[in-house]
Amino acid sequence: MSLDLTEEAARLAAAHPADAVEAINDQPVIEAARLLDSMDYAAAVGIFDQAGLERPAELIGAIPFEKAVLLLAGVSPDQRADIFRKLPGETGERLMSQLPAETRDELHRLLFWPPETAGGVMTTQLLRIPVESTVAQGLDIVRASPAAIETVYALYVVDAEGLLVKAISLRDLVTADPDAPVASVGSSRKSFSVKPEEPLKNVQRMISKYDLTAAPVVDDTGRVIGIVTVDDVIDAIVEQDTRETQHMGGLEALGAPYMATSFLAMIRKRAGWLCALFLSEMLTASAMQHYESELEKAVVLTLFIPLIMSSGGNSGSQATSLIIRALALGELKLRDWWRVALREAPSGIVLGAILGVIGAIRITIWQKFGLFDYGEHWILIACTIGAALVGIVAFGSLAGSMLPFALQRLGFDPASASAPFVATLVDVSGLVIYFSIAFVILRGTLL
Amino acid sequence: MSLDLTEEAARLAAAHPADAVEAINDQPVIEAARLLDSMDYAAAVGIFDQAGLERPAELIGAIPFEKAVLLLAGVSPDQRADIFRKLPGETGERLMSQLPAETRDELHRLLFWPPETAGGVMTTQLLRIPVESTVAQGLDIVRASPAAIETVYALYVVDAEGLLVKAISLRDLVTADPDAPVASVGSSRKSFSVKPEEPLKNVQRMISKYDLTAAPVVDDTGRVIGIVTVDDVIDAIVEQDTRETQHMGGLEALGAPYMATSFLAMIRKRAGWLCALFLSEMLTASAMQHYESELEKAVVLTLFIPLIMSSGGNSGSQATSLIIRALALGELKLRDWWRVALREAPSGIVLGAILGVIGAIRITIWQKFGLFDYGEHWILIACTIGAALVGIVAFGSLAGSMLPFALQRLGFDPASASAPFVATLVDVSGLVIYFSIAFVILRGTLL
Repeated sequence: MSLDLTEEAARLAAAHPADAVEAINDQPVIEAARLLDSMDYAAAVGIFDQAGLERPAELIGAIPFEKAVLLLAGVSPDQRADIFRKLPGETGERLMSQLPAETRDELHRLLFWPPETAGGVMTTQLLRIPVESTVAQGLDIVRASPAAIETVYALYVVDAEGLLVKAISLRDLVTADPDAPVASVGSSRKSFSVKPEEPLKNVQRMISKYDLTAAPVVDDTGRVIGIVTVDDVIDAIVEQDTRETQHMGGLEALGAPYMATSFLAMIRKRAGWLCALFLSEMLTASAMQHYESELEKAVVLTLFIPLIMSSGGNSGSQATSLIIRALALGELKLRDWWRVALREAPSGIVLGAILGVIGAIRITIWQKFGLFDYGEHWILIACTIGAALVGIVAFGSLAGSMLPFALQRLGFDPASASAPFVATLVDVSGLVIYFSIAFVILRGTLL
Repeated sequence: MSLDLTEEAARLAAAHPADAVEAINDQPVIEAARLLDSMDYAAAVGIFDQAGLERPAELIGAIPFEKAVLLLAGVSPDQRADIFRKLPGETGERLMSQLPAETRDELHRLLFWPPETAGGVMTTQLLRIPVESTVAQGLDIVRASPAAIETVYALYVVDAEGLLVKAISLRDLVTADPDAPVASVGSSRKSFSVKPEEPLKNVQRMISKYDLTAAPVVDDTGRVIGIVTVDDVIDAIVEQDTRETQHMGGLEALGAPYMATSFLAMIRKRAGWLCALFLSEMLTASAMQHYESELEKAVVLTLFIPLIMSSGGNSGSQATSLIIRALALGELKLRDWWRVALREAPSGIVLGAILGVIGAIRITIWQKFGLFDYGEHWILIACTIGAALVGIVAFGSLAGSMLPFALQRLGFDPASASAPFVATLVDVSGLVIYFSIAFVILRGTLL
C-alpha cells in the first residue's frame, strides 16, 4: 500500500505537471493529499502552481500542517493568494502566521484586491530592467532570472523609483543592437498598463485585442506591482463562459466542476432561481383565473395555450442569447438599445407571421381531414391563433432583446437574462395578448 | 472630402492596428474600403492581418482589383486563407490567379483543411532551426527573422528533411550556454505536436492545459508544416463560445456580429429552429385535444398548465446548461451519463418537492382567503398540482441532463440541446404526466 503510494507519487512527479494535476483531480481529497505529501517537494509545488488544480484549499487542509506551510511558501504568489482566498478563515490564519514575513506581506497585498480584478489575478514575479541598462545587460537579467518567473517574454523597463518607463518584449531585446540602451528598443507607442482595480474583463479584452503576452499592473504612483499573463486570461475567459452558460440556463454559477459539487450545494444553486421563476410564473395562474369564464365558454382556446406560450418564450430566448453575447463581446453598447429594438420588432413580426401561417394551416388540415373538430367557428379560431402568434413572437423578440440592456443599465450582469427568465416574462404577457386577441376576434361568436 | 479621407487614413495608419480595425469595423464597407485603399500599404496590410477585422472579404471585394491583389500578397498566410474562405468563388479565383505562384501554392495547401481544424487556422510562418546549430546560431536565426513572423517564442529544431526533432522556447535558448547544441536545450519530455486534421477544440485544450505559446502542426511524415499560436486559440475560444451561446438560445450561430448580419440572414438563422420547435410543440395541442373531455369537466386544471409546464422547462434548462458546459470542458465524458442520471433524478425530486409545496400552499391561501374558489375538491387539486410538480421537475432534470449526452452520442454538438429544445421536449411529456396524475387523484370526484 505504502509502496504503491510512493511509486504512484514518483510517477506523477515525473509526468508533466498538467497531467499530474488531472490525475490528482480524479482522486478523493484524502488520497490526493497523501500523494502530494509523499511526492518530491519541487514536483508538489509544481502541481500547486497549476491553475487547473481543483480543490487546492481542501488539499492544503488535508496535508500535514508543517508540510502545507512549506508548500505554500514555494508556490507562485498568484496561486498562493488564490489558495488563501478559498481557505477557511481559521486554517488560513494559522498557515499564514507560519509563512516568512516577506511572503506574508506580499500575500496581504495580493489578497487586498477582489478576485475579479487585475490585482486579484496578477503575479508579483516579473522581470524589471533598470532604465540605464544596455540591451546586453537586459539580456543578462533575463538569463539570470529564476525558473519561477512565469514569463520572460514581457519585460518592464523601470527607473530608480520603480516607475514604469516602458514595456518591451524579449523579441525586441533579442533583435536589438546589444549596445543600445534598453529604453530605445521596441515600439514608440505608449505602453499598455492597467490599474490593480481594473475589472478582469477589461484586462482580458485588452490582452486579446492587442495580442499581448502580459499586461503590467501599475499602482497610482506609476510603479509596476505585478503582471497579468495571457495564461491567466485564457483561464479567466473559460471560467467566465462557464458562469455565463450557467446563468443563461437559469441557475447560479456552480463555481466548481459538476461532479465536485455536493448534492446540497447543487440544490441550493438551483432552487433559488427555480423558486423565483415559479413565483413569477404564478402570475400565469392568476391571469388564467381572470379569464376563467372565457375558458369555460371556449375550452378550445386552452388547447393552444402551451403552443402559443412556448413560441413566445423561444423567440425571446433567441433574441436574449444574441444580445447577451453581443454585449459581452462589446459589439453592442448600452446606447445601441433603440437600434436593436428597431431590428427586433420587425424580425419578431416576420417570424411570428411565419409561425402564424403554419399554425392556421395546421388547424385547417385537422378540421378538413376530420382529425379534430374545432366547431363551426374554426376559421375564426385559426385567425385568432395566427394573429396571437404574430403578437406574441414579436413581443417575445422585443422583450428578450431589451431585457439584457435593462439589466446592464440597472447594474446587473446581462447574462442573468436567462432563457427561463425571458420565458417567464413572456408567458404572462403572452396569455394577456392571446386572450385579448381572442376577445376581439371571437366576440359575439364563441365569447 | 478627399482631403478628409487622406487625413483620416493617415490617422488610422499611425494608430495601433487593433484600434484602426475598430474604426474600420464601424464604417460602411464602401467608406472602409476607400480608407484602406488610401492608406500607407504596410499599415493596410497590418489591418488585414488582425483577426478582429470584420467583413475582410467584403472589404477586399470593394478595393480596386490591382490593389486588392497587392494587399492579399502581403498579409500573413493564415489571414489570407481566412479571407479566401469567405470570398465568393468567382472573385476568389480571379484574385488567386494574380498572386505569385509560391503564395498561391501555399494558399491551396492551407485551404485544403477545414476551418475548424489545426490545419485550417495554422500559419506557415515559423522559425525552424537546423538540428546541427549551436544555441548562438539559433539566436542568430531569431535575430534575422522577418517582422512578419507571428511569434519567435516557439522555435522548432528540425533535421535536414524538415522533420521535427524538438520544440524549444526562446526562453530556453536565451538562458542556455551559447556553445551548446540546440538539440540539448529545453525539456527532455517529448514535444507536443498536432496533426493538421486535429479538431481545433483539442488544440485549444492542449495549448491552454500545458500553457504553450504555440503548437506545431506536423504532417504524416513528421515535417512541421505550420503552427497554431495562443492568439489563434483565444480568438477561437471566443468565437466558439458565441456559437455555443447562440445554439443554447435556440438558433443557428450567426457567424457575424449582430449589427453586421442582414435582416434576411437573421430571419433565416432564427426561423429554422423556431419552426422546428413550433412543429414539435404542436404535439402539446394534440395532447390537449386528447384530454379535451377532462378539460371540459375540470376547467380548473387548465389554470395551472402554464405554471407546471414552465417549471419542467426551467429545471430542464438548468440541467442542460450544466451538462453542456461540463462536456465542453471535458469534466464529463460520454461514459459518465449514468453517474449524472443518478445525481439528477434525486435533485429533480427534491427541487420538484420544493416547488410542489409552494404550489400547494398557494392554492390553500387563495382558497382560505377567498381570493379564488377552486371548488369543493380544492385539497385534491392542491395535491394534484404538488404531485405533478414533483414528477415534471424530476422528469425535466433527467431529460435535460441526458439530452446533451444523447446528442453527443449521435455525433451532434451537445450545445444544440438548447433551452427551448429541452422545454419543448419537457412540455409534451409534462402534459401527459400532469393529466395522468390528475386522473389518478381526481378520479371519481372531478374527473
